[in-house]
Amino acid sequence: MSAFANDETAAIEAVAVAYLTAFVREDVDTVLDAYAEDGVLMGPGLLPVEGKGALAMAYPAVFAAVDFNVKYTIKETVQISEDWGYVRSTTEGTETIKATGDVTPVTYAELFLIRKSAGSWKIARYCTTKTGPA
Amino acid sequence: MSAFANDETAAIEAVAVAYLTAFVREDVDTVLDAYAEDGVLMGPGLLPVEGKGALAMAYPAVFAAVDFNVKYTIKETVQISEDWGYVRSTTEGTETIKATGDVTPVTYAELFLIRKSAGSWKIARYCTTKTGPA
Repeated sequence: MSAFANDETAAIEAVAVAYLTAFVREDVDTVLDAYAEDGVLMGPGLLPVEGKGALAMAYPAVFAAVDFNVKYTIKETVQISEDWGYVRSTTEGTETIKATGDVTPVTYAELFLIRKSAGSWKIARYCTTKTGPA
Repeated sequence: MSAFANDETAAIEAVAVAYLTAFVREDVDTVLDAYAEDGVLMGPGLLPVEGKGALAMAYPAVFAAVDFNVKYTIKETVQISEDWGYVRSTTEGTETIKATGDVTPVTYAELFLIRKSAGSWKIARYCTTKTGPA
């Protein structure tokens, strides 16, 4: 659904899907490639991670600590302007603390703010929150 | 910072500030007034809350359970188009479980996606995540 000359909804959603699927397989390169240079991650248990250099440090640490086995559902994808869009999703599954092997059922919700820059859609701002267990 | 005919950065930021300050004083009416009719809340411990009717149920339940004593910092406010903008903030302080009196230091990060509709800027999508304690 878009009111713009170029409907880029599919390209916008593809960025979120690329991120979400790379995240589950702990594919740091693809995760980082989904972000803009100035991209920001806001997620549980870590202070906001600002910029690709910081993101490149943060994701390996996250993946070293936790194994995420979650499936995503895209709730909506909206093109805001010629250069901006957003995607809202939820994820559900389990996470395993690698140090202990403890497995917990989890649900998350995600909000991706995605910007077109130099012809490519990239994650500009991303917030993920742990919606459950309550 | 805006490239638009009407720089509405101040009006966009004011919505987030109105929300954040009303939230701390448990002012449900002002919190709800900050949202668009189709506004969505994504926050820790509750499944995404979609639409003003659901929001009107969710906030009193949140305030009944927890007393938030936090201060906000606006990290950035960006006007995306004539009708859209976003605000990124962090909050820091303590929260008290009302049932037990337990007090915990907490930090959060927030991403507000704000839309102008019928002349008013309102929260369209909002994600808040508990960044600490880790």
